[in-house]
Amino acid sequence: MLTVLGRNSERIGRDNLSAVLREVHRHGAVSRSGLAERTGLYRQTIRSLVGQLAERGLVDEDGAPTAGARGRPSLVVRPRTDTVRVLALDVEVDSLGAAVVSLGGTVLRSVRVARPRDVAAPAATIDALADAAAAVLRAGPTDGQRVVGIGVAVVGVVRRDDGLVRLAPNLGWTDVPLAALVATRLGLDVPVVVGNEADLGGMAEHLRGAAAGARHVLYVSGEVGIGGGLIVDGRPLDGHRGYAGEIGHLAVNPDGRRCGCGATGCWETEVGEAALVRRAGIADEGAGESAVGRVLEAADAGDARAIQAIADVGRWTGIGLASLVNVLNPEVIVLGGLLARLHPRIAEVVDDQLRRRATTALLEGLTVRPARFGADAPLLGAAELALEPVLADPGSLPVIPLAVATVAPAASRTA
Amino acid sequence: MLTVLGRNSERIGRDNLSAVLREVHRHGAVSRSGLAERTGLYRQTIRSLVGQLAERGLVDEDGAPTAGARGRPSLVVRPRTDTVRVLALDVEVDSLGAAVVSLGGTVLRSVRVARPRDVAAPAATIDALADAAAAVLRAGPTDGQRVVGIGVAVVGVVRRDDGLVRLAPNLGWTDVPLAALVATRLGLDVPVVVGNEADLGGMAEHLRGAAAGARHVLYVSGEVGIGGGLIVDGRPLDGHRGYAGEIGHLAVNPDGRRCGCGATGCWETEVGEAALVRRAGIADEGAGESAVGRVLEAADAGDARAIQAIADVGRWTGIGLASLVNVLNPEVIVLGGLLARLHPRIAEVVDDQLRRRATTALLEGLTVRPARFGADAPLLGAAELALEPVLADPGSLPVIPLAVATVAPAASRTA
Repeated sequence: MLTVLGRNSERIGRDNLSAVLREVHRHGAVSRSGLAERTGLYRQTIRSLVGQLAERGLVDEDGAPTAGARGRPSLVVRPRTDTVRVLALDVEVDSLGAAVVSLGGTVLRSVRVARPRDVAAPAATIDALADAAAAVLRAGPTDGQRVVGIGVAVVGVVRRDDGLVRLAPNLGWTDVPLAALVATRLGLDVPVVVGNEADLGGMAEHLRGAAAGARHVLYVSGEVGIGGGLIVDGRPLDGHRGYAGEIGHLAVNPDGRRCGCGATGCWETEVGEAALVRRAGIADEGAGESAVGRVLEAADAGDARAIQAIADVGRWTGIGLASLVNVLNPEVIVLGGLLARLHPRIAEVVDDQLRRRATTALLEGLTVRPARFGADAPLLGAAELALEPVLADPGSLPVIPLAVATVAPAASRTA
Repeated sequence: MLTVLGRNSERIGRDNLSAVLREVHRHGAVSRSGLAERTGLYRQTIRSLVGQLAERGLVDEDGAPTAGARGRPSLVVRPRTDTVRVLALDVEVDSLGAAVVSLGGTVLRSVRVARPRDVAAPAATIDALADAAAAVLRAGPTDGQRVVGIGVAVVGVVRRDDGLVRLAPNLGWTDVPLAALVATRLGLDVPVVVGNEADLGGMAEHLRGAAAGARHVLYVSGEVGIGGGLIVDGRPLDGHRGYAGEIGHLAVNPDGRRCGCGATGCWETEVGEAALVRRAGIADEGAGESAVGRVLEAADAGDARAIQAIADVGRWTGIGLASLVNVLNPEVIVLGGLLARLHPRIAEVVDDQLRRRATTALLEGLTVRPARFGADAPLLGAAELALEPVLADPGSLPVIPLAVATVAPAASRTA
């Protein structure tokens, strides 16, 4: 993009305000001088921008003298958790999550409940999701709380424009208008945005989790299906229509088992929950979370078949990861969901497959680690999605009258 | 990146000069008003920038009234082909290419010769490459010609910083300092930059070829090995260390044949020249170009085994492409090299595999087409690599004295 002196100064001001809020949001607490360093802006400019953010109830400042620092202490800027908030929702195959999240990514309240699996129609899931939302919203809204948006993570291929779930084979959904259903059911007058749970999990792990600071990240979310969140050069890899990252449908065994997507030998037929449970001979396929627990227990008790099942899943995990390393040359691979749980048990066999199958140069500087946020990564990513309009244009929020903007007991504030 | 008013005005001027030259270089001829539109700069700024480029012998201008246009005709700006030039080289398994290329991507002279395949040591290849370079440079340099750099494409994993070929299994090379060898052997006092041939082929096809204008591109180069050039959101996907795109080593058949990289069942063991020739039963593996021609001839003559061999390669091509579509969601897939030659014969079976294996939403808006530049795509990409310093900072070139800068017979010019 070109920069033209003397034009678009309004846009530049907006971008600078956004950049400062993003830094504070990401890091939780940053000194003014730290902000100047990170953004490349003059300290005087920072002071003015922080002032604008404070007026809108987005940040607070206080002095925090550093040990050994000379001269005036640099003021520390923090995101306020009592003003802007979002509702985050997460639709997994086995469970539903809901949380209220503030600026700074602070989870104020959250629940996770089982998803009704016997009903294929979306209505039962939407009802259960609304109950979960009510549980986290019940405590509020306090006067000072403003839910400005709803973000939803879902295990499916999502059209971002309108939140249509194009395909979620493991939910049995095709073309389900999830954003519209949630908006209608919850009846809150705020925007609803929907994203793929692996994309959002990857976003959360990249922002503050196991891949913080990395430029090239592969987040692998695995429960029943396997999804991918790809970060390339610090930004999400969306692809032409926003559907990139369907790594569960890498063809790793083309003459293998039938996949929920209709193809054969997709990675998730060898690596997902069903594959683990099937191999261990513990229960029928698709038995989910509790069956996985039983496989792990059996392995711990020395059951040879369970131990072998875990090793096989590890081998196939490594095969798929090696392919993705060869294609993407990531710096960090973050294993989420089921794979995070299995990580201590499969790390060695995964490494072995990577060494056999990934080109040596591409293994240099590569780290494989479990997700920091575990099963909650997609929920946190959904919160980021809902916060995005505020982060992109903080100046669009109204200035709060002085008496309200200052830190005061919640009871004395108005919305 | 942040934009700060009143700072870095020098850099902004440089970026604007670069942006204008890139537009002219890419499109060949652009009107001043077209440049203003494409860059978002004022017409007066464009006039000044074009003047600076003309002073350095980089562009020419002439009037070109458009039919029906009112008022003064907008001057058309063209890249000059008689000043800045680069030497492009290409090291394939079967052949070596050399070309002299000017601004605007115009190939002034080029040759392609067989690579000496019986010798594994790089020395014989470097000698043959130097001969090819001499053949295209022999006609010049004229006084007005300036070779400002050398770009080299090679079928291997390349460290961009110093042009070290980390691994090129199909050449038998490990850690070959190609840039240094070429620099020493050619003795021209200009920078030598080396890139992966698929990355560079993808760059050329994206700039002016079969993927021009697309934002998300997968270029597949296939001869003996299979390489990939990935464009994400208009920019090359390099990955953490610059090695991304090793798509020939997707594990598509993990218990299959041994690959040159040491692993088993890599995509290129099912899709490359050796796989085609082996399946057709025509000759020993690795017999290369002429053996491929014999398979195609046999198929045209109705040989059932040759026909089946092509169909099998097509099926495996489709399997690998479906995986990559699921991961990357490209807009355009460009098939280069062997796959471009096979394209009319395998298009249908490739489409069939894509429909079976790629998620439906990811096929929307997807086009698969053969490379526009065929075997020369990597050579053209190598030229782009060598031109990059000029394109990035045209102002660093010296202003040419007026008598030289005006168009005049070559004999009257000085270098």
